[in-house]
Amino acid sequence: MGHSDLTVLLLALAALLVAARVCGELARRLGQAEVLGEILAGVLLGPTILGRFAPAVQGAIFPAAGTPPAVTLAGIEQLAVGLFLFVAGMEVSLAAVRREGGRALAVSVGGMLVPFALGLGVALWVPHAVGATDGGSTGFALFFAVAMSISALPVIARTLIDLGIYRSGIGAVVIPSAIIMDLVGWLAFAVVLSAVDRHGGMPTSVAQTVMLTLGFCAVMLTVGRWLIDRALPWVQAYLSWPGGVLGFAFALALGSAAFTEWIGLHAIFGAFVAGVALGDSPHLRPRTRVVLEDFVRSFFAPLFFAGIGLKADLIGNFAPVVVGTVLAVACAGKLIGCGLGAWLSGLGPRAAAAVAMALNARGAMEIVLASMRFGLIGQTTFVALVVTALVTSLVAGPAIQRLLALKQVRGLANWLPPRAFVRRLQSDDREGAVRELVAAAGPAGVEIETAVQAVLAREVSAATGIGGGLAIPHARLAGLHTPVLALGVSEAGIAFDAADGRAARIIVLLLTPGEAEDEHLGLMAQVARELADPAVQRQVVQARSHTELIALLRAGTVAE
Amino acid sequence: MGHSDLTVLLLALAALLVAARVCGELARRLGQAEVLGEILAGVLLGPTILGRFAPAVQGAIFPAAGTPPAVTLAGIEQLAVGLFLFVAGMEVSLAAVRREGGRALAVSVGGMLVPFALGLGVALWVPHAVGATDGGSTGFALFFAVAMSISALPVIARTLIDLGIYRSGIGAVVIPSAIIMDLVGWLAFAVVLSAVDRHGGMPTSVAQTVMLTLGFCAVMLTVGRWLIDRALPWVQAYLSWPGGVLGFAFALALGSAAFTEWIGLHAIFGAFVAGVALGDSPHLRPRTRVVLEDFVRSFFAPLFFAGIGLKADLIGNFAPVVVGTVLAVACAGKLIGCGLGAWLSGLGPRAAAAVAMALNARGAMEIVLASMRFGLIGQTTFVALVVTALVTSLVAGPAIQRLLALKQVRGLANWLPPRAFVRRLQSDDREGAVRELVAAAGPAGVEIETAVQAVLAREVSAATGIGGGLAIPHARLAGLHTPVLALGVSEAGIAFDAADGRAARIIVLLLTPGEAEDEHLGLMAQVARELADPAVQRQVVQARSHTELIALLRAGTVAE
Repeated sequence: MGHSDLTVLLLALAALLVAARVCGELARRLGQAEVLGEILAGVLLGPTILGRFAPAVQGAIFPAAGTPPAVTLAGIEQLAVGLFLFVAGMEVSLAAVRREGGRALAVSVGGMLVPFALGLGVALWVPHAVGATDGGSTGFALFFAVAMSISALPVIARTLIDLGIYRSGIGAVVIPSAIIMDLVGWLAFAVVLSAVDRHGGMPTSVAQTVMLTLGFCAVMLTVGRWLIDRALPWVQAYLSWPGGVLGFAFALALGSAAFTEWIGLHAIFGAFVAGVALGDSPHLRPRTRVVLEDFVRSFFAPLFFAGIGLKADLIGNFAPVVVGTVLAVACAGKLIGCGLGAWLSGLGPRAAAAVAMALNARGAMEIVLASMRFGLIGQTTFVALVVTALVTSLVAGPAIQRLLALKQVRGLANWLPPRAFVRRLQSDDREGAVRELVAAAGPAGVEIETAVQAVLAREVSAATGIGGGLAIPHARLAGLHTPVLALGVSEAGIAFDAADGRAARIIVLLLTPGEAEDEHLGLMAQVARELADPAVQRQVVQARSHTELIALLRAGTVAE
Repeated sequence: MGHSDLTVLLLALAALLVAARVCGELARRLGQAEVLGEILAGVLLGPTILGRFAPAVQGAIFPAAGTPPAVTLAGIEQLAVGLFLFVAGMEVSLAAVRREGGRALAVSVGGMLVPFALGLGVALWVPHAVGATDGGSTGFALFFAVAMSISALPVIARTLIDLGIYRSGIGAVVIPSAIIMDLVGWLAFAVVLSAVDRHGGMPTSVAQTVMLTLGFCAVMLTVGRWLIDRALPWVQAYLSWPGGVLGFAFALALGSAAFTEWIGLHAIFGAFVAGVALGDSPHLRPRTRVVLEDFVRSFFAPLFFAGIGLKADLIGNFAPVVVGTVLAVACAGKLIGCGLGAWLSGLGPRAAAAVAMALNARGAMEIVLASMRFGLIGQTTFVALVVTALVTSLVAGPAIQRLLALKQVRGLANWLPPRAFVRRLQSDDREGAVRELVAAAGPAGVEIETAVQAVLAREVSAATGIGGGLAIPHARLAGLHTPVLALGVSEAGIAFDAADGRAARIIVLLLTPGEAEDEHLGLMAQVARELADPAVQRQVVQARSHTELIALLRAGTVAE
């Protein structure tokens, strides 16, 4: 790998990571799953946008196909998706899967049969509407039917993680269903390929692949799991820490991935199952989990997801009718099949719809690309499949959020705009401090003086110094539309009649609308909880700017 | 990337990681730096050993040159060394470098001029003795002189990290010296290549490269460092955690690496300098450091170091005279040059020798490989340079250890063989417990009863219950050759007259040789310190096996 090759590789990696991060953050701001932003980052940097409007820039950053950096990038993406699924597997709760196993089976059977039948019917009946170039061979129809019924475990897992429901009841139905559908889908794909492609490439026959797959899963989740659980204390006791246990995890992930790839399945399955087996052990330490999850999620995962969007020119080969038909068939099949399965197995209509929406997300681009190699589908079907993958993934996050009425948790940091932070309170008495904080909070639609008096009246009826150097003066105000908060620090401390007799150094003012009693209490509790830790309090007192304050409040809400 | 390509890539990665881990652990057991084991793992798996004795196996695991998996592996190795130097840079203490800057300059000037002059002289005078095939061109002599004077920052950094002296006074001299020598070495290499290779390949002239390099370092370590320090709180406050700050770090590392590669230097310099600038900020949180360091050191670093050994067939092209001469010239030049510089700048003879030994370590294989492309050197010189790199790296660790009389820190875990752990003490009184523990410890050369009486006599003169549920009965015994310990757990607790009145649940027996008073006190303090944390004590009481005990004692000695 020469000078310019390495430069291009590093540039491409840096560009993908930066774009994925920026778009991911924007998606999060808009209440979407980060993974969507990452996929769209790839579309922006790829032939669709950057390649169309600034091909010279695109060519300088991203390597031409077949060159060493392009080959390396493709290899790193494969490694990335394997490691991502290994880490996702580590978070699977086997107990939850066991509990929801029957339901997952119902969902996945429905979610495979309906799309397969629908896809096969459409591809045989109106092949041109889904982009067939040769009048529609049986091979094309079979491939199309499989493509309709396959899922996208990586995208689905990421979407649920981003929404914070990966380990919830919904997650316990969706993830096993996606695993089953993808497993069967890949196996079916292997069958189709071996039927079409007589020249080999597969080292094993289809029957062997199926047997080996089932055997691998069974062994890994029983004997393998037991062995890993026994091996972990030994590894942590006698090998260097933390290098030993991390090396053990990597060997397990890569070895299993190599095995499932070799038997004709995809590498991601081995990695995922290995992750499940490892993550189930109570001997795995928190630090090991954190290191693996943080690094893989912030380095490898964005590279893979942005890589999806990078591969296709979505505009050049866009055929509206084909795209519309494929999208309609794909959504109809999955939503009806999965939704029906979930509903028949006893889920409520909203939960069933959420399960169907989650499983409707696609993105298994490798299958699409692989099929190109075998000449099964043309460019228009290819683009239609990519658009379907993007649109279904795009829709999944917001739809689930709406169906389950998920609320974003707003930390204290979200309630404190820059003006609401008073770094040093001037007053050294209660009334003065309250007045300063009300002015800083600036409650819209309420007179400052009205608010001050309401807060002070409250102080008379019950002191708001909650002890430990923290006070939360508060009031509910008619006419206020939304809660407002302000945080002030007193160098000398101000007496707020706390039970422990300590003066308050951190004073948080809380004003809420008159009717919102629940919200009022919730915010009180949240302030008390987020500022409970003496270490956090110390840092708040020392914060030199609003940015530093926000940074440490946000860090306080996660395990450091 | 097809099925079999991906299988081979994953297999190769898994094999490299497993072999590197196993050999690294063996090296550590033998008191050597882990990196050595990793390099030797590559030699074992490469053409030298596995390829010679089981070529079919080697061919099945490792891809043939030029195939997609081989290209990917080479690319990942480049990425790996970049990320490794980024992380190594994060640990550089700029304050220490400033303090030792003058000395480092003296060391590096000596360490470049002497080897360069020696190398040039030998290559011009007896070209055949160092493997020249064409009677010795000026180009060959220049290249050889540069190769003699260049260093290997990655290997040196790893060796010092493995020995635990990266941040010591020696490290503060060695690392800046290695940086200067490698910087100048790579620049000199660029000059030689541009003199030999008139057909281009370099995007910039040599003068430009030198200017841009100095400019990049200056800007990055002043304005860049200041900007990073200002940006970090913002990134941690407003982007998702920890993805935001990790993405920021990756973008910084890869962007800087791409820049230095592009200007004609090597990517590792940009990554290293970026790491220094980032690591210097007090706003970088411990969790971010831990995630980056743990993952890079246990995944990327072993891949790179094992990759060094993987590249050459050390037996097939071995010419004893050439290898001997090259090794002698290399060691003489570096040791004399660096040692003289260190000694003249005021270091004592042992420290100066340790500095010279550290800087004598080579391993910059890329330069050697790159030179092959330009036809400058033949296979025999190539192998001689690789052997030199291996031997000098091999010797560095033990030599430094001996010169500085470094002792390995032995944690409590190292003092407790399986028989010395009594999971449940049978006795519920002091004498019985001591008797059980003495029997478990099995002090060689001393009667059990003598030891028991000595310990009990000590108990009479001063109680050994140190409070918090821990007791350390102990005695110094004439005739004992080495300290012995035993650890017992009492379910009910045994009174050891602790000041806090609590019965001891964990009882550690400590017997040391009669004359070793310092060692006795040191071990007492170590036991007390390692078992001080109530959380650790709780886990010790619950440990179900010796392995679990050792695992948690070792984890207790590092930050979880």
